[in-house]
Amino acid sequence: MASVKSISVLGSTGSIGRQALDVVDSFPDRFRVVALACRSSAEEIILQARRFRPQLVAVEEEKAAKTVRETLGRDGMQVVVGSEGIAECAVLPGADIVVAAAAGVAGLAPVWEAVRAGKTVALANKEPLVVAGHLIVMEAARSGSHILPVDSEHSAIFQSLLGQRRESVARVLLTASGGAFRDLDQVALARVTPQQALAHPTWKMGPKVTVDSATLMNKGLELIEARWLFDLRPDMLDVVLHRESIVHSLVEFVDGSVIAHLARPDMRLPIQFALSYPERLPRGDPPPDLAELGGLHFERFDTQRWPCVGLARKAIETGGTAPAALNAGDEVAVEWFLQGKVTFSAIPRIIEHAVTTHEVGAGESVEELLAVDRRVRDVLEEGPARWTS
Amino acid sequence: MASVKSISVLGSTGSIGRQALDVVDSFPDRFRVVALACRSSAEEIILQARRFRPQLVAVEEEKAAKTVRETLGRDGMQVVVGSEGIAECAVLPGADIVVAAAAGVAGLAPVWEAVRAGKTVALANKEPLVVAGHLIVMEAARSGSHILPVDSEHSAIFQSLLGQRRESVARVLLTASGGAFRDLDQVALARVTPQQALAHPTWKMGPKVTVDSATLMNKGLELIEARWLFDLRPDMLDVVLHRESIVHSLVEFVDGSVIAHLARPDMRLPIQFALSYPERLPRGDPPPDLAELGGLHFERFDTQRWPCVGLARKAIETGGTAPAALNAGDEVAVEWFLQGKVTFSAIPRIIEHAVTTHEVGAGESVEELLAVDRRVRDVLEEGPARWTS
Repeated sequence: MASVKSISVLGSTGSIGRQALDVVDSFPDRFRVVALACRSSAEEIILQARRFRPQLVAVEEEKAAKTVRETLGRDGMQVVVGSEGIAECAVLPGADIVVAAAAGVAGLAPVWEAVRAGKTVALANKEPLVVAGHLIVMEAARSGSHILPVDSEHSAIFQSLLGQRRESVARVLLTASGGAFRDLDQVALARVTPQQALAHPTWKMGPKVTVDSATLMNKGLELIEARWLFDLRPDMLDVVLHRESIVHSLVEFVDGSVIAHLARPDMRLPIQFALSYPERLPRGDPPPDLAELGGLHFERFDTQRWPCVGLARKAIETGGTAPAALNAGDEVAVEWFLQGKVTFSAIPRIIEHAVTTHEVGAGESVEELLAVDRRVRDVLEEGPARWTS
Repeated sequence: MASVKSISVLGSTGSIGRQALDVVDSFPDRFRVVALACRSSAEEIILQARRFRPQLVAVEEEKAAKTVRETLGRDGMQVVVGSEGIAECAVLPGADIVVAAAAGVAGLAPVWEAVRAGKTVALANKEPLVVAGHLIVMEAARSGSHILPVDSEHSAIFQSLLGQRRESVARVLLTASGGAFRDLDQVALARVTPQQALAHPTWKMGPKVTVDSATLMNKGLELIEARWLFDLRPDMLDVVLHRESIVHSLVEFVDGSVIAHLARPDMRLPIQFALSYPERLPRGDPPPDLAELGGLHFERFDTQRWPCVGLARKAIETGGTAPAALNAGDEVAVEWFLQGKVTFSAIPRIIEHAVTTHEVGAGESVEELLAVDRRVRDVLEEGPARWTS
């Protein structure tokens, strides 16, 4: 009989967290939820906790935590609070897999704790590897922690590399749908609204990720993640446009072979794979029907048009604290854009400013990297005014 | 330092054999030819032997063998003759890999000997698995022989299955370019000439294989091979049309994932992979440029239009000696077509006649299977006249 895996979900009320719980729900004989954590969505985490009966519930925000504790306390569940509470879910001895699906750099500290504790981490949260990839891979090697990517692109690369030798890999191509604005010209691009940016053609995601997907910064962040997940030199990474979002990435080998992973664009698939690995569990929905689709299309990626990818590539090459500054700049810029304070085309300029004005350090500890993150935000706190021209 | 693999090439003067020698030639530090065998191409095998200096040269046909012996004897090389000579090359103790690239059912006996001797067989010759797949896989399991496919489709499947669990496989899709006549209607199809049939749009191959590729019987034979190579039930095998011949096959998994192998259509690539496996060796020509290609296209396979695939599928389901009869029927039909004795559309009718009129046996020995092969040919020897109407 197959064993039941115990899952701790960090960021359970976000888009990925909810889909992870969907997957757990589909395989009650294979997965069990032992911990749930969120930032502040009291109402939803209460519903989730009542459904999945975890042993531990963590809520970061104090007021929300109080509400949750009052309600779930009566059901006999343990509710913990603050970042210490989240960290408790990340290192819970009873958890086989920690799903890291928090949003933003806030997810770094609990992922770091989970890796230090030698956990298997199903990693959806981009920022931990973007900001602190060099530290995380070193620490994982020491602790024996396994990091399984949940992103569709990285899951595709992971699956395409199974059974292959590391030294046979020549290049990894991440596919990009091109985001919401792939067909707009530069003038129209400068004028797009947050509302337009939030309507992604294929994937349903949170607002920050959706805007990153429209600026193509998501692809830049994914290049940084891929660099650490698969130990690839920056020049071994590239991007190709692929509108259909069916081919989720490709690996090129030294002999001219290419292995590609295809699937319908549904985040539950890479989530499920990370949870079930090395097994695969049957899903109701079939694989993509290629004859029905007719064609899969590819276009060269235009680095001039999408400067964010070039900025990310430069940050990988610089290394140290550069990716942390890039990431902080992007978080601030996207927030301002969503608040209507800056235009879409100001986003890469703000990010570039953040990276070039910060003093690059070695980034030798998580604390140093988080300090860089705060410093970049502080510098940008002079406000969005200068970017509105 | 990497070790040098010793290669014995059966069918060295054919299309695959020559390309195998090209590959060996590209990596003199990795491969060494220890034996060459052909049917009757004295002149070419003499040139090959002078270039590669094998310890053993086999020529099946006596007259050609005599010429070769007279010439190479002076160079101090050992030349053996007849099917015993070929078998000697198949079991040569010094050979690490036997490349089985003979044409037709004639290749079965030496492949059987190589498998019995526990050799690693790089298998290009379709007929051994088509005719005697059930015996060969059992014998390989006993002797410890490894069979590495050389066909681009099976190499693609083999590469897509690396690192995957057998029980995760849902379905295997072989891609078919559609052959030379993919766009002809039934009337035009009935009238095509041998010359037209020999002009394949993407692959350069021998005449029999090229006609099989035009009738789609090659895909039928490949289904049978895949059934044995990868231990798949017939209902787990299917065909999809893909004109570009870039995606060489796809494996669908139970979770809705698909792994595909892509490469430029160049036989040297799967040949090289079979020789270098589990390593990959660098080739000068790069992987396909998807952005330059623009698109990869897929169409549903029309089983009505291409009856040969259905005949092959039925033969797998019947099992025993049925695939041997199918194969013999195809060899005779293609020969008659190339001689201008029957029309293109008579080919599947001749094959069907061969299969349905033969008495299905269990096929418990290679001898029994070869007897079926001869019996079908004898029955058809009544001549092509009845198929010309």
